[in-house]
Amino acid sequence: MPELRKDPIIGRWVIISTERGRRPSEFLPDEIRTRGGFCPLCEGNEDKTPPEVFAVRENGCPPNSTGWTLRVVPNKFPALRVEGDLNREGEGLYDKMNGVGAHEVVIETPKHDETLSTLPTDKVIMVLKAYRERISDLTRDPRIRYILVFKNHGAAAGASLEHSHSQIIALPIVPKRVSEEIDGAKAYYEYKERCVFCDIIRQEMGHKARIITENGGAIALAPFASRFPFETWILPKDHSAYFHHTQPAQFRDVASLLSDALRRIESTLPRAPYNFMLHTAPPNETDEPFYHWHIEIIPILTKVAGFEWGTGFYINPTPPEEAAKYLRKARFQENRG
Amino acid sequence: MPELRKDPIIGRWVIISTERGRRPSEFLPDEIRTRGGFCPLCEGNEDKTPPEVFAVRENGCPPNSTGWTLRVVPNKFPALRVEGDLNREGEGLYDKMNGVGAHEVVIETPKHDETLSTLPTDKVIMVLKAYRERISDLTRDPRIRYILVFKNHGAAAGASLEHSHSQIIALPIVPKRVSEEIDGAKAYYEYKERCVFCDIIRQEMGHKARIITENGGAIALAPFASRFPFETWILPKDHSAYFHHTQPAQFRDVASLLSDALRRIESTLPRAPYNFMLHTAPPNETDEPFYHWHIEIIPILTKVAGFEWGTGFYINPTPPEEAAKYLRKARFQENRG
Repeated sequence: MPELRKDPIIGRWVIISTERGRRPSEFLPDEIRTRGGFCPLCEGNEDKTPPEVFAVRENGCPPNSTGWTLRVVPNKFPALRVEGDLNREGEGLYDKMNGVGAHEVVIETPKHDETLSTLPTDKVIMVLKAYRERISDLTRDPRIRYILVFKNHGAAAGASLEHSHSQIIALPIVPKRVSEEIDGAKAYYEYKERCVFCDIIRQEMGHKARIITENGGAIALAPFASRFPFETWILPKDHSAYFHHTQPAQFRDVASLLSDALRRIESTLPRAPYNFMLHTAPPNETDEPFYHWHIEIIPILTKVAGFEWGTGFYINPTPPEEAAKYLRKARFQENRG
Repeated sequence: MPELRKDPIIGRWVIISTERGRRPSEFLPDEIRTRGGFCPLCEGNEDKTPPEVFAVRENGCPPNSTGWTLRVVPNKFPALRVEGDLNREGEGLYDKMNGVGAHEVVIETPKHDETLSTLPTDKVIMVLKAYRERISDLTRDPRIRYILVFKNHGAAAGASLEHSHSQIIALPIVPKRVSEEIDGAKAYYEYKERCVFCDIIRQEMGHKARIITENGGAIALAPFASRFPFETWILPKDHSAYFHHTQPAQFRDVASLLSDALRRIESTLPRAPYNFMLHTAPPNETDEPFYHWHIEIIPILTKVAGFEWGTGFYINPTPPEEAAKYLRKARFQENRG
């Protein structure tokens, strides 16, 4: 059972794999299992993953067989386990608990050489709907306090498989980074009685310099205090705290803007690795006027080094206004969806 | 002038280089200027760095000439500038200020192929003394609120020059990561009336499983909630909030343990990149009973990915108890100092 341990000074939790630790010799330079090798996420290899928990299949073909357009499966090497109780306990001055939670993989396409940015909009909508399904389902587990959806694209962004996929982790606590964002948004709302994200959208739409692209329902912008070069946020224009409460009609605009933003990033920074994270309010609470779900995309172009680790500060060599300019004028193939 | 910008939601500051932003084409795969190439930090190339602000020289040879064992010079490409006023101002709902501060490079040795772990203890003491000198000097600037000393070793740890060096950044604000640690330590002290770091040292010395090595004045341990595999903390055994108030006699034990810990890491994980950060209390305050300066060393073996960015949580595949076991039994050449 993995173990959750809390830093006694700053209260940050860490997941420690206690079953069989990675030895020094196992930290070899990264290799991504590439085209030449075997890929457990490709169509035809359904028996190489744990049984699916959700899938989009045509013509009623049976689960865990071919004929799918999207599958969600438990991670074969999960960071957290679904079985068991939380069992909080102490160890002298330290705190720990069982690593209870869920860790799933969203296989976005059956084809090895497609990526989220080459998929037609209809299929990107399907991916967002799969996120919503899984969040709604995992939310029903009373041990779960937060669900994070994220994507690692490229080896330098932490992807260990090349085949296009995203991940879902359900956690037994609300993580620090999330509660900081919630607390900050709440403090702003208490002072202004307005959602800080709605205010950001309004100011950016007036100012224009940091807008990358927009459509009727969503906006993509380079945030004012971007930590990373070409950092891109995608926000629905209408206020909504929970991603999984979003109406299907809104999905089209967000999906098409996500696809558009990823194409702009790929065309401006060819083959750049990136991460994206879905930021949504912790579930099981009443609708929140202060929080606004969104997606943060960070291309991995610089290294996190001693300065960042020591301060929590970031040094960004490309002002967001310039990043937005490059991304606005990016040339790329039109969306097929 | 670089610009400091504050994220309006979570209050995190970012340094934005506004003078001439890095373009997309400038984010090419890393190359470290290696042995074959020209090194501006080597002895004989003193005119290729800005004039030194501190040096250890034998026989009174003139500044910025050969004959030194250690030099501190301003960074040629500083993240912050020494000139100018702070000028806090708003931009709609956003906050920003001038990037005032200092950014210096500590050249730890005149020889290109020596590293902090191969230097004799006497020279490591010299490096720590140089940190103390520079912190004491920068503390006198009333615009400065925090001074961070850190080291990036290896390309994957963010080093852009191979020659052994560390860096000092003086900031006009106390960064988030530092105030979180201060606040956490203060909360513990208010509850227990004991320093949390002193309590950690006591518990670890009783328990033994996470101790890597120790001597009369200092201890090296794998922290209970290690974020990274083989993360190593070095703490002076005697309570002291400020690194720059440490007495010269204490330096020998800390320096010798730092050197010992780096040798153990290098022997266990050959050529592993690493960062280390000196954690010390913000200067210009009265002596603090709740804070305890220390050094955190993090080998760079895993990738920070979407999960970490989204949660602030870390997944560590090597339990600290196992890491400590490997580092305890590491075989390496004895310290020459």
